Amino acid sequence: MATNITHHAGITRKERNDLRKQQGLTIWLTGLSASGKSTIAVELERQLLARGLHAYRLDGDNVRFGLNKDLGFSDADRNENIRRIAEVAKLFADSSSIAITSFISPFRADRDTARKLHEVPTPNDTTGLPFVEVFVDVDLKVAEARDPKGLYKKAREGVIKEFTGISSPYEAPEKPEVHIKNNDDLPIADAVKQIIDYLDGKQLLKA
Amino acid sequence: MATNITHHAGITRKERNDLRKQQGLTIWLTGLSASGKSTIAVELERQLLARGLHAYRLDGDNVRFGLNKDLGFSDADRNENIRRIAEVAKLFADSSSIAITSFISPFRADRDTARKLHEVPTPNDTTGLPFVEVFVDVDLKVAEARDPKGLYKKAREGVIKEFTGISSPYEAPEKPEVHIKNNDDLPIADAVKQIIDYLDGKQLLKA
Repeated sequence: MATNITHHAGITRKERNDLRKQQGLTIWLTGLSASGKSTIAVELERQLLARGLHAYRLDGDNVRFGLNKDLGFSDADRNENIRRIAEVAKLFADSSSIAITSFISPFRADRDTARKLHEVPTPNDTTGLPFVEVFVDVDLKVAEARDPKGLYKKAREGVIKEFTGISSPYEAPEKPEVHIKNNDDLPIADAVKQIIDYLDGKQLLKA
Repeated sequence: MATNITHHAGITRKERNDLRKQQGLTIWLTGLSASGKSTIAVELERQLLARGLHAYRLDGDNVRFGLNKDLGFSDADRNENIRRIAEVAKLFADSSSIAITSFISPFRADRDTARKLHEVPTPNDTTGLPFVEVFVDVDLKVAEARDPKGLYKKAREGVIKEFTGISSPYEAPEKPEVHIKNNDDLPIADAVKQIIDYLDGKQLLKA
């Protein structure tokens, strides 16, 4: 396969980062439905943009109804969903942008696949791209009590099948780069600060 | 499908464009193998980056071996290849970036699909995103004479099947936004200028 593809010297990652004054990376949020992932992702994106950085959120709204609209919720389709999201996030990271993904991504194996894909060098560099896993951690009972869209209720009633936490497992990350305990009413700003502090500490927010 | 996805108010396209001082769009190059697409795409990306704009090339190197590595060269897979590329380009455009795609994309129906996908509003705006089709036009005999990788030769020998121009049709665009006649030794700079002039004329290179 892919024998009829030719190579053309493009812009190296270093050239691009220098021009953009930014390096690329992927911030991978994972957690139960109603854990607060999307709220955190939106505010994180806002703060990164305010710092003059290029950042973009990949979430159900712009991925599930577009790129992955051919995929359902079977195990195979969920795997493929995560694989494609990881590949797209990596393209954004490769473009010197910060990709923020906001998906339950309940399976450790899928998240590990996403991480490993980022370790594969891109055509414009000999290295992969940073992958920052952020565990947005709430107890199931807290998420279920929030239930802003009544999804847990529907899952309990069996209206929604294979709902993470109810009828399908959530495998918590073992060594996430950032672990946000979001059970109590943690202010959004504090949650986002945990991520930003990590990124700053690792010098990831500068070229 | 996709019933268990919730909405979270994000950054609007206008907010993002204002912050980034840039609007997003997709520049879709199409043409025969050895027409000069990739060379033009690389130089175009370089000039856009030099102007302080965020731009990123999607091509065989970073898409075929990543996101679309599960796809072969059957008709169905070629269609799906183009569909995914179009969706990813649109995500870049939605992020206030300039996506430059560089694929033969020989079928009018596929390119029309790509264009139509861009007309669908994104979650952060009520409109779609600009789609600029660039026809890199060479006569088959010119492309075949160039044949930098010996692909036309292999296609003539039957080693490569369904090779565009030899054993599979190339359907020329009827109304491309930019039409580059690349038969003679057109300097790369002139080819790129045609595209930049079009974008400037349409005010597409400013927020």
